[in-house]
This record gives sequence, structure tokens and C-alpha cells, in this order.
Amino acid sequence: MISNDPISELQKLLFDKLKLMDQLISKMMVSDNAPRIPEITNHIFDSGGKKLRPLLCIASAEALNHKLDKHILLAATIEFIHTATLLHDDVVDESSTRRGKKTANILWDNKSSVLVGDFLFSRAFQLMVSTNSLRVLEVLSNTAAIISESEVLQLSNIKNVDIDLKTYFTIIEGKTAALFSAACETGAMISTDNLSHIESFKSFGKAIGMCFQLIDDYLDYKGDSNIMGKAVGDDFFNSKLTYPIIFTLKKSDKFENKKIKDLFQKSKKTNNDFNTLLKILDKYNALENTKIEAIKWSKTAKEAIQTIPQNSIKNLLDEISDNIISRTS
Amino acid sequence: MISNDPISELQKLLFDKLKLMDQLISKMMVSDNAPRIPEITNHIFDSGGKKLRPLLCIASAEALNHKLDKHILLAATIEFIHTATLLHDDVVDESSTRRGKKTANILWDNKSSVLVGDFLFSRAFQLMVSTNSLRVLEVLSNTAAIISESEVLQLSNIKNVDIDLKTYFTIIEGKTAALFSAACETGAMISTDNLSHIESFKSFGKAIGMCFQLIDDYLDYKGDSNIMGKAVGDDFFNSKLTYPIIFTLKKSDKFENKKIKDLFQKSKKTNNDFNTLLKILDKYNALENTKIEAIKWSKTAKEAIQTIPQNSIKNLLDEISDNIISRTS
Repeated sequence: MISNDPISELQKLLFDKLKLMDQLISKMMVSDNAPRIPEITNHIFDSGGKKLRPLLCIASAEALNHKLDKHILLAATIEFIHTATLLHDDVVDESSTRRGKKTANILWDNKSSVLVGDFLFSRAFQLMVSTNSLRVLEVLSNTAAIISESEVLQLSNIKNVDIDLKTYFTIIEGKTAALFSAACETGAMISTDNLSHIESFKSFGKAIGMCFQLIDDYLDYKGDSNIMGKAVGDDFFNSKLTYPIIFTLKKSDKFENKKIKDLFQKSKKTNNDFNTLLKILDKYNALENTKIEAIKWSKTAKEAIQTIPQNSIKNLLDEISDNIISRTS
Repeated sequence: MISNDPISELQKLLFDKLKLMDQLISKMMVSDNAPRIPEITNHIFDSGGKKLRPLLCIASAEALNHKLDKHILLAATIEFIHTATLLHDDVVDESSTRRGKKTANILWDNKSSVLVGDFLFSRAFQLMVSTNSLRVLEVLSNTAAIISESEVLQLSNIKNVDIDLKTYFTIIEGKTAALFSAACETGAMISTDNLSHIESFKSFGKAIGMCFQLIDDYLDYKGDSNIMGKAVGDDFFNSKLTYPIIFTLKKSDKFENKKIKDLFQKSKKTNNDFNTLLKILDKYNALENTKIEAIKWSKTAKEAIQTIPQNSIKNLLDEISDNIISRTS
């Protein structure tokens, strides 16, 4: 928290609330009967994610002068849903590293990751029920369905070299933007009856999420693996076609187009293959264009909350909208 | 439905309600975006499970003269939770057959089973939110947590030859009896304000579930694999220590005790090993004793609802309590 980027600023400003959330998370991830649960959940929660989704949830509530402590519950819920999906994602993607640490599926096994993921999902539902708000429950249960639906859609599009941008956007809106959106929407929902403000935060969260995922897909080709805590090229080696690739497939000539498709459909991909691909991406400025697409969403985010009354938190949310595209991990 | 066992009788009596539930399930298992979801969910729902849990949910409500259609929603919720856990269980147990058909993890892959399981969990939460009852939501979200907790507990006790009966009962109460109990409790909850009746159905469901699982563990050694639609000996080959084994470990002499433990800890188990084990179980009447334990629970179930006013459905629930121990699949 030494840096003065707006996310760190917001974390500082909401330190007390985040601490309450962490305490609630610690309390809820315990299981008296099954000691393996806290072993695994400690491993994940201690690995120091940025907790951006719950931060935005709390901030959306506080920007609207939330007076109760319901947003703590909600933020913990959002983080539990997120962590559950990470555990299952790592099984599905066969990932071995996340945030610079070995993943649970490697340290324990796939079975434990599946079941502890289910446990965290259930804890999320227990927490959200305790908000006593059926509207919040409706948004969050719909979000959970959309997330898993798009994860399946993503899985069925592995190696699909004919995937179009529409499908790509449906996938990232579901797997990433939906939870950002729900975090901000429900944070607003428990703080105001002003439907237009709730709608603003819903759109803000969605746009931040879209931007976040586009940058993720950018960093997967261009990032520094030491900063990211995971390998570069994961999407290529997992045959996941993302924005930079779909963009290049549209722009490139017949020969390059076939080359990219062949590379993605190869079962044993080499570092050489990855470098060949990078050269074609480079020729068409695919990564710069991915960033341009992300910038569009970053602008959409800022516009979405322009009618929200100014205060220190709202200002930081504006800054985060600008800043999110420069993230490096 | 030719047989006149009480479950079939109840199915006949509640045919219209079960049909409405099936229609709701068909509607909710669809996903516009991800066609793989209905492929997999059709495969499971078509494989003809007995749908005992939702049947008992509807029956508990109808026994208390439920006048609305909320129990249809609730029953579909229960079936979605159950199906989600089946999908994940088959991944965890590496099962290849269920109800006489290949499992989804074999026909598709583990990844699809994990993600479609998550989707069904989310659908369950969407459905339960639409009951508009926070009390129901509290019971069901707690139940989901207990189920996954005990699945983890079961997983951590694989090959644990020192497992005691207390732990075994905690596992089966969580992984099986909790959902039966919640099905009956919430069925009652939406139909009456009489807390004693709700409590009766909660205890009834738990006892039916305990009995059901004990018989399951019995059939895993003694059943007919053609009738069950799955192999005999799964628990042994998966190194899962259940009632008949824990019972025999307590009764047997030092030499047999060591033999059983060695067999369970072997990594490559043979049919010969299974037969050796069966002989020791036979010597101590372990399977008969498992049935005796199941009969205790069957009596507990019947007693639990003795203060519920008589009607045709309540009478069938009494008969089911007696009859559940003679199930063969």
C-alpha cells in the first residue's frame, strides 16, 4: 500500500471495512468437521489476491453513503464466489501456478479443489442469505448461473478457431464482468432506492470487468510472468482463443490465418510455436488493438457513474476507471 | 409404476405435481449460450433416477395440505442440488457407471462435469430464491454447505483404516441425510406454521436419509449390479470405509483386523481381495448388522411423523419408512 495508485488509495480509505470483511472471511472459511477445508482456503486467501471485486462492492455502497454493515457481508459473498470459481477454473485449465504460488489442485488434488470450491459456493450462499434481501439474492444467484454458463461456453470453444468476437464477448461478460457488475450493483442496491444510481453502478461494474478481462488477455501475451505470478502464454498453450487472436485472424492474410489456426489446433505446442504466433500478432498490432478495446470499456465505466454525486470514493472510482488499463498483474 | 410398493404408490398419487416439476426442470436446465449444458443435463435427468428426494419434498408439503405450487419449485431445487452433487461425486470417485449408463465424466470429461455441476448448483439457487422465503433459503444454503463439508470429510478419510463410527455417521448425515432432511423440512415449512410439524418432517427426512445411505453401503457389498446399475464393491475399490467395514474392524480378531486394513490400503486391489474381504464380513454378520442399524433409522423415521394427522399421503410415508430398508437399487 505504499504506491499511490487509486486502487491502493481506495484500499487505504476503506481499510476498516476491508479488515471486517477479512475477519468474516476467516470465520466463514473454517469447517469444524473437515480440517482440509481451512488448509486449502487458507492457502488461497493468504496468497494475496487484490480482492478487487469486494473492494468495488464496498466502494459502491460507500459512494452512496451506506450506513449499515451489510456491504461487509456482501463483499465477503463476492470474494467467496470468486474464490470458488478460481478453484474450479484451475482444475479445468489444469493450472499449476496462480499469484506466484502452486495451485491447490497441484498441492492437494483435483478432487479437493472441486469439493472445497463447492464448499465456498455454499458459504457464499449462506452469507448472501444473511443479507436478508431477496433482490440481492436474485442478482447474485443469476450471476452465479451466468458465470458457470459462460465457463461451459468457454470450455466448448477450446480449440475452436472459428470463434467470433460476439462469442468471445459473451464469454468474458459472463465469466468476469458479471461478478464485477453484481458486486457494484448489489453494493448500490443495499445503499439506495434510486434505481438510476443502481443501474449506473451495474453498468460501471460490467465495464470495469470487461476492461479487466481484456487486459488479462493482453497480459497473457505481453505480461511479465514474475509480476503476474503466472506464466505468459497460458491461453495459447490451453488453446483458448482470446481478443488478440480473434482480431488477428480477421486481419491476417490467408497464409497467416491458416498458420494461426494450425498452431492453436496442435496438441503439443512448443515455445517456438508461441514465438511464431507473437510475430504475427505483432505485425497486426493485435496487442495494441486489444488495449484500445479495453480503453473503450474504461471510458464506458467512467461515463456510467458520471451522475453519481461526487465524494472522495466516487472520485477514486473515476480514477480506477482510467487506471485499470495500466495494470500489470 | 406397475409395482405397488409405497414409493410407486406415492408417485402415482402425486403424478400431476411430479409432472409439473419435470417440466420446470426441463425448462431450467436449458442454456441458450452453452449447448453442452442441456446435452449433459439431459443425459443425467433422462437416466431415470427415482427422484426420491423431490418426491418426499412434495409429499411432506401435501401431507400438510399445501395449497400453493411452491413445493414444485422446492422439489426442482432439491433435485438440482442432488444432480449437481452427483456430477461432482462422479468426478471425485472416478466413477464410470451410474444407473446403468456411462457417467458424464466418461462421456464428456471431468471439466464439463465440474462446470455443469456448478451450473446446476446455481440453477438450484435461482429456483430457491424464487420461493421468496428467507427461511427456506437459510435451510437450503446451510444444507449445501453441510453437503460439501462432508464430501471433503469423506475424501480426507479415504484409506483411513482408523475411521470410527462417529466420523462415518457425520459423513453420511452430511452427504445424504441432510438433503433428505431439508427436502422434508422445507416442504413442511412452506405448508404450515406449526413448528412441531416442521420439526417432525425434518427428523423424518434425516432418518430416511440415514437409512437410505446405510442400505446403499450394504448394497455396495451385497447388491445385484444389474439391478443397481452400478458395480458391486465400488466402496472397497475406492478405499471408502463404510459401516460394514468399521463394524467388522471392531469385532474381528487381530489377524483379520490387520488383513482388512492391508486390503483397504493396497493401491491395486483385485477381485480376489474383494472376495477375501467378503468372507471376513460374512463371518461377523457385518451386512446383517448394517441392515439392523438401517432398521433402527427406519423406525426413527416412522416415529418422527407419528403426530402428523393421518391422510393418504401420511400413510404412504409411514409405509415408506418400513419399506425403504428393502430397496435393491
